[in-house]
Amino acid sequence: MTVPPLYGLMQDRPLQISAMLQHAARFNQPREIVSRLPNQVFRYTFKQAESRVRRLAKGLEKLGVRAGDRVASLAWNTHRHFELFYAAPGMGAVLHTLNPRLWEEQLVYIINHAEDRVICFDPDLAPLVERFAPQTPSVKTFIVLCERAEMPANGHNWLCFEDILADDDFAWPEFDERTAAILCYTSGTTGMPKGVLCSHRSTVLHALYAQSAVAFGLTPLDCVLLVVPMFHAYGWSLPYVCAIAGAKLALPGAAATSANIVDMIHDEGVTLATGVPTVWTGVFDNLDETERNLGTLKRALIGGSAMPPSMSRRLREQYGVEPVTGWGMTELSPLGSFTGLTPEIDALPGEAREAALHHRAGRVLFPLEVKIVMSSGDAAPHDGRTAGDVWVRGPCVAAGYFRGEGGEMLDQQGWFPTGDVGSIDEHGSIAITDRVKDLIKSGGEWISSADIEKAATDCEGVAQAAAIAVKHPHWQERPLLLVVPARGAQPSKSAVLEAIRGKLAKWQMPDDVVFVEALPLTATGKIDKKVLRARYESHLMAAAGAA
Amino acid sequence: MTVPPLYGLMQDRPLQISAMLQHAARFNQPREIVSRLPNQVFRYTFKQAESRVRRLAKGLEKLGVRAGDRVASLAWNTHRHFELFYAAPGMGAVLHTLNPRLWEEQLVYIINHAEDRVICFDPDLAPLVERFAPQTPSVKTFIVLCERAEMPANGHNWLCFEDILADDDFAWPEFDERTAAILCYTSGTTGMPKGVLCSHRSTVLHALYAQSAVAFGLTPLDCVLLVVPMFHAYGWSLPYVCAIAGAKLALPGAAATSANIVDMIHDEGVTLATGVPTVWTGVFDNLDETERNLGTLKRALIGGSAMPPSMSRRLREQYGVEPVTGWGMTELSPLGSFTGLTPEIDALPGEAREAALHHRAGRVLFPLEVKIVMSSGDAAPHDGRTAGDVWVRGPCVAAGYFRGEGGEMLDQQGWFPTGDVGSIDEHGSIAITDRVKDLIKSGGEWISSADIEKAATDCEGVAQAAAIAVKHPHWQERPLLLVVPARGAQPSKSAVLEAIRGKLAKWQMPDDVVFVEALPLTATGKIDKKVLRARYESHLMAAAGAA
Repeated sequence: MTVPPLYGLMQDRPLQISAMLQHAARFNQPREIVSRLPNQVFRYTFKQAESRVRRLAKGLEKLGVRAGDRVASLAWNTHRHFELFYAAPGMGAVLHTLNPRLWEEQLVYIINHAEDRVICFDPDLAPLVERFAPQTPSVKTFIVLCERAEMPANGHNWLCFEDILADDDFAWPEFDERTAAILCYTSGTTGMPKGVLCSHRSTVLHALYAQSAVAFGLTPLDCVLLVVPMFHAYGWSLPYVCAIAGAKLALPGAAATSANIVDMIHDEGVTLATGVPTVWTGVFDNLDETERNLGTLKRALIGGSAMPPSMSRRLREQYGVEPVTGWGMTELSPLGSFTGLTPEIDALPGEAREAALHHRAGRVLFPLEVKIVMSSGDAAPHDGRTAGDVWVRGPCVAAGYFRGEGGEMLDQQGWFPTGDVGSIDEHGSIAITDRVKDLIKSGGEWISSADIEKAATDCEGVAQAAAIAVKHPHWQERPLLLVVPARGAQPSKSAVLEAIRGKLAKWQMPDDVVFVEALPLTATGKIDKKVLRARYESHLMAAAGAA
Repeated sequence: MTVPPLYGLMQDRPLQISAMLQHAARFNQPREIVSRLPNQVFRYTFKQAESRVRRLAKGLEKLGVRAGDRVASLAWNTHRHFELFYAAPGMGAVLHTLNPRLWEEQLVYIINHAEDRVICFDPDLAPLVERFAPQTPSVKTFIVLCERAEMPANGHNWLCFEDILADDDFAWPEFDERTAAILCYTSGTTGMPKGVLCSHRSTVLHALYAQSAVAFGLTPLDCVLLVVPMFHAYGWSLPYVCAIAGAKLALPGAAATSANIVDMIHDEGVTLATGVPTVWTGVFDNLDETERNLGTLKRALIGGSAMPPSMSRRLREQYGVEPVTGWGMTELSPLGSFTGLTPEIDALPGEAREAALHHRAGRVLFPLEVKIVMSSGDAAPHDGRTAGDVWVRGPCVAAGYFRGEGGEMLDQQGWFPTGDVGSIDEHGSIAITDRVKDLIKSGGEWISSADIEKAATDCEGVAQAAAIAVKHPHWQERPLLLVVPARGAQPSKSAVLEAIRGKLAKWQMPDDVVFVEALPLTATGKIDKKVLRARYESHLMAAAGAA
């Protein structure tokens, strides 16, 4: 006998992005958003922001923007960009965040691929827009994110953002929570970037779990400095999390220099600041130069790539700031794990505690499902050692790329292979040991480039390190280590090798060390190994040949 | 031109209760659940629990339980009851939590109304089940929550819980997230209790927002002592929140005496304990008797009715425990607000800070929408003063009662009038000043019974107080104050009136004070004003007649 299922008698209300801002406007009226502009520090309350966002939504509607239309932003972290984060999805359109640091041909490709109808951009990016505009015919409306007095004078039919704000009698529409909300392209290892299209449902669910005490865990006592660009992986969702948590939000604008970051931490009472490791390297330099401390800062969230142990130590020991990290990607909305103490980790002696807490990428967050797939195809035990391909599943995970690029993304059971390699321990803490494509295949054995880099960045006099696979006549591939010395330091090859020797097995040691002034970075600030691999591909072959 | 909406490309995975326990079993393997049984303290890990829960689900399936069937529990807080919280909804059936303290005729009514098919009960409740079983023909299977050796010997065809556990090869089914999950009846002010039927979607969403840092905010460093019964408003959702937070869970069993509560706090390292105010009154008595402190306890969550100021002061000043409170009801899943600091409240001087933080019911939690409806029908400003009827809306709010009891619950826009009276301030902090039905209408003016009670319980020598409306020949209704003196205290009528005089307007003062040994309680431990109103209805009429 089949009994029909019984449905719950709960209100059938959709999860919508506009509700998060309305919540802040109603129940957190005095809380501020602070936005650093070229010539002033602008500040207003969430309540004032919500009114402007409704005026913006109505303004976009008057310009002909309709449900499903893509409204692109090409902008730094300011209050106007924040307003777009709510206005475009709130009215049923799709916010498409563009990365101004991409190559121009990639930008053109992405805008055309997304068929953006409107583009909103910061005035300093006007020359870039002027160059690519002739190649992006879908864009009908250009809006400059500035006051009228700041409008670039160049004879185009560009609109001023402040001029398009309409009356504030706009009411947020209700619609299906699976409606598209934000489109964010992610740079693949090969080919052109691919678009991840979040829904209202996934964005609100993600904000809810990102706000849990085992992740961002913000309260109205917090002030978040968003150094990570809002165009990068949905700004790590913080424009949304701050609204539902009631936290203050500080936006550093176009000039997110180390000095400005440290200034804002002091001026605004920042408690959590976010950035990729290179941001923190710059902040350290500024603190050294100016002999300042980190003021009210309690936590530094370091993401995008692994946090060097020397960085976490310095934050904690010198500045009393708790380093936290996580693992995520655009396809995960983006958060997958977050640093978190357990009683077992807390009870470990000094170095072991440090390693368990800061050298792994944190505990997996509900409702994300993660499994480690071994080469046998079986799931690995959660023993903290057995590594394999990291697969994920969940309501905030992408099911496919925009317009089907890259083909079918998921397996039959709905799992997405992330391309990361890692392990999970019994506390649910994940360690990302490498990207599948960055592994070095020496003979029949895999060597993790990340392990080599971790050992190297912990060495005195080393600022940054990158290990890459280069061709080898006998072993197919062997590791080459590239090192950027710390300011004023002149480490020798033998000193670097000596320092990392105890931390790696003999066969994992790099075959050579090359000192460079800087490492090439991708548009999102990660080390660009594609470029390095191409540049050093024959480094050992040459050496072998010469020998 | 109408543009069709664009849908997000995220995985279409349902929110399901079983996923919360699976998360804990996978990513928090060592964390424990501790259950105080009559003759032992039982402990196991979440991983072990999940295996037993699958065996239970398979066992129920073998007994013929199908999707949508109601599986009732009549039980105290133990690990077996915890297992039912996951097994029944996890397999697609509905857990129906029964309150053993209800009148027998109400229990019979509820079981028949819900058409429970299975009933699982603690052995000490066997005599109760024996009495009502002949009147509940829908119940086909009786399961006693005990070991075989503990089975009541009475010749019935009752099954032993441990015997029905089957193999652990059961796989959690996937189904629509709107499927019914838990049924919990709430005692109305009139008539029989009405059923609130939660869905998987509402239960998981509620657990996510209850776990935010502005609500329970638990981490793996926490141990929660669940004194609030699991049959009361879904156990305040903590059996679910602990799983996704990775917190330890301590369950005090049938004998949740004050001594056992204090013992468990010390033995298990409890950091958060939950209970109604009377629980804490009992705990204070035990601490006085045994000269103990509250050990590792960091927060005491006091809910169900308003926290007396003397209680919050004593917790903080004498024991270093932070009192927290909230506002909720079964119809809200149940959490609506939670105590939370803001910078503005934190900056207030001593008494004002105390009042802002502890004499209101905390800040409204996203995604719940709340509005205060004035008698004009308009929404009240959030000024912290203007009171009105509290209306709510949201994805975790009931849309109607089971089988349509009580008729249409919502207005045209989907709002539910809660029956509470309150105000909201600019920080989103709600104050519940009364129940609509408990207001006292003196002449044309409303007097809040809660205001009188708050003033009275803060008075030296007063343990409990209840203000009720009684008939008055001239004013229609006037307040009568009933007082339970503190142990050993003998406050006089004039002393009580003198103590509260400065805190109330003259016309709000009670017309008389009556000292009683105890106040009648409802099955959920709240003061039963229905009984008091009936008992004292003519108290002032008699006095007026005698005068």
